[in-house]
Amino acid sequence: MKAVGIIVEYNPFHNGHLYHLEETKKQTGADCIIAVMSGNFLQRGEPALVSKWARTKMALSAGVDIVIELPYAFAVQSAERFASGAVTLLHSLFCEEICFGSENGNITAFIDAAKTFLEQKQQHDSYVQEALQEGVSYPRANAEAWKRLNATNLDLSKPNNVLGLAYVKAILQKQIPITPRTIRRIASDYHDKTFSHPSIASATSLRKALKGSLAHLETIAPYIPGTTKQTLEQYYDTYGMFHEWEAYFPFLKYRIMTAEEAELRQIAGVDEGIEHRLKQEIVAAPTFSAFMNSIKTKRYTWTRLQRICTHILTNFTKDQRKKTETPTYIRLLGMSSNGRRYLQHVKKHLPLPLVTKVSNLKHDPIYQQEKKASFAYAAIFPEPARTNVLKEEYATPPLLQ
Amino acid sequence: MKAVGIIVEYNPFHNGHLYHLEETKKQTGADCIIAVMSGNFLQRGEPALVSKWARTKMALSAGVDIVIELPYAFAVQSAERFASGAVTLLHSLFCEEICFGSENGNITAFIDAAKTFLEQKQQHDSYVQEALQEGVSYPRANAEAWKRLNATNLDLSKPNNVLGLAYVKAILQKQIPITPRTIRRIASDYHDKTFSHPSIASATSLRKALKGSLAHLETIAPYIPGTTKQTLEQYYDTYGMFHEWEAYFPFLKYRIMTAEEAELRQIAGVDEGIEHRLKQEIVAAPTFSAFMNSIKTKRYTWTRLQRICTHILTNFTKDQRKKTETPTYIRLLGMSSNGRRYLQHVKKHLPLPLVTKVSNLKHDPIYQQEKKASFAYAAIFPEPARTNVLKEEYATPPLLQ
Repeated sequence: MKAVGIIVEYNPFHNGHLYHLEETKKQTGADCIIAVMSGNFLQRGEPALVSKWARTKMALSAGVDIVIELPYAFAVQSAERFASGAVTLLHSLFCEEICFGSENGNITAFIDAAKTFLEQKQQHDSYVQEALQEGVSYPRANAEAWKRLNATNLDLSKPNNVLGLAYVKAILQKQIPITPRTIRRIASDYHDKTFSHPSIASATSLRKALKGSLAHLETIAPYIPGTTKQTLEQYYDTYGMFHEWEAYFPFLKYRIMTAEEAELRQIAGVDEGIEHRLKQEIVAAPTFSAFMNSIKTKRYTWTRLQRICTHILTNFTKDQRKKTETPTYIRLLGMSSNGRRYLQHVKKHLPLPLVTKVSNLKHDPIYQQEKKASFAYAAIFPEPARTNVLKEEYATPPLLQ
Repeated sequence: MKAVGIIVEYNPFHNGHLYHLEETKKQTGADCIIAVMSGNFLQRGEPALVSKWARTKMALSAGVDIVIELPYAFAVQSAERFASGAVTLLHSLFCEEICFGSENGNITAFIDAAKTFLEQKQQHDSYVQEALQEGVSYPRANAEAWKRLNATNLDLSKPNNVLGLAYVKAILQKQIPITPRTIRRIASDYHDKTFSHPSIASATSLRKALKGSLAHLETIAPYIPGTTKQTLEQYYDTYGMFHEWEAYFPFLKYRIMTAEEAELRQIAGVDEGIEHRLKQEIVAAPTFSAFMNSIKTKRYTWTRLQRICTHILTNFTKDQRKKTETPTYIRLLGMSSNGRRYLQHVKKHLPLPLVTKVSNLKHDPIYQQEKKASFAYAAIFPEPARTNVLKEEYATPPLLQ
């Protein structure tokens, strides 16, 4: 059986994702599609609209065979670490290929750029440092360095090109025997906030249109499969909300207000004295977006600041980041009957434990952080949902489709 | 002018407090009554029903001349440290006497017991240790030690006798030139939870009857001055609540769930491995009272556990406790015109700075903790109250009556 990996967040699963999934099957001839998916918090430092379980359900309904969790320690991270964790996990399940969506759509461009990067890493890094000295953000410094290397025509201002390049770099750097492949995204740029296609729209634009409420579900219905719509409805009916940063702000504010600066400095990503700024600006901030706007500088991208806020909220420390550099387990969130057959087939040979009961992970530092993140995610629920959601994290067996 | 000090929490101010205030004036011939009052969190590890400002107003309306704050670092502590901070502050304002309410009512009993304690401290401490070895709580071990010393007829199962003894011990131990005096409490034991007198009831019974809602204010009206009633009404109208532990539980739970055990161990009072128990029992606890009941043991009194919870909520660490052993400032919360005259009279000679603007205290470790406690107290408000209440903490000038 040929397994092909995809790296996803599905926040929420939409027609663009479906297109990517079906093209992946068609182009690779995969017998089994394995998705490694961020948990309750996402790469850009945001809570997922709905839980990992609901998003697993969307994925399985749409035809993914196996969903495994990309742990918090890799998910809420820069493209490099996100990619490294994801590719390692897909390789551990013996995926022969990975297939990612990108704005560029030509895999040779990614491979060439990754090779150049590895050959000229020092030069690239010194260009990045030079640009950072000028006070710009890391993504801009990175794009600037590539421009100066004059070695790629990849547009690195496009977020999916950046992620794609990170996957290919991880594969080459770690010499992982996995073939990368890319599919050109259609119609919508990742960050597009308006609808410009009759059935495809970015997850960002869908979340924006949804406005955290069921009332707007019909607006986004043309852009999502019926199963996503049902799952969203069901989630809202059960929990009374879609998750967004503003709901977590009381906890973030509480934590920043009551933490010492020295404690904030221990949090992953809190560097260069940003803790002063956080402590200073939080006092009068009434909302998350007001807070973000007040701490924003040329040097810090919105995403980087959101990740810092997420790490504070979930108490992810520098020390923990150090202890969690490589995946130590494969956590199964869900599978189809086809996926189950695949796992039966490979499970004796897996290099990492395949985990269906997280109680076995008590002492694993990666899972320690997952637990904290799960609780932070649940903290906004009234009882009994808060306690139940937490039990779900511990007790939910992998979903079956 | 003769100043006399009283040590209060006024949670809320009631007729028993009024009786104590008026008897104090009568018995001491004081020209000026100075109350040192706990701030937003109280000795037994609870949030105050209403803010320090509202309680200051109650005190001034009832005839107190000067209200100063007993900082968190002394207020939310054992009787010894509470007493030591309070007596030191009253002395710093040149009180000639202090007058406390007690179940016993005979000052000689307190002085004799305090002397015995100082003379036989080692013997007392070793009796306490022996009793603790048997696994009982500190208050029981202390009472047991006194019984074995056979040196007092003070009933040390009564909380106001215990506090009174701590005041007198602090005076003798620190050789503070202040005369202690006591007034026998009438009608109600501190912990009484029912009404047994037509106009006097304990603060505990009043809070219980109030049930956190304005609807029950009439029930307690016979037991409180009209000015207390007005202030409570006004507070509820403005903020929509009276404060109680349950409202803070989401934040406490969030913090315990996301903190590492090593972090909890740094919190004041978290000793003997109680952090394991806290982490374990918090997971399924839906309410504060369920949580408290689940962590309660013979060794830990309810009060001690509540203090631990308050220290976790406000992030008061062992390190900070060490740095805050003696008052460093006198914070004025309010004064009458008579109180103002008194302060005019003494202010040049004060051994500690008299603070009316807390912005001057930025780097004071005692005030650092006060700020964290103030924010924790405000964390449960929706905006804009949350931010406004915080501004009040920084910007409110002393109240004038």
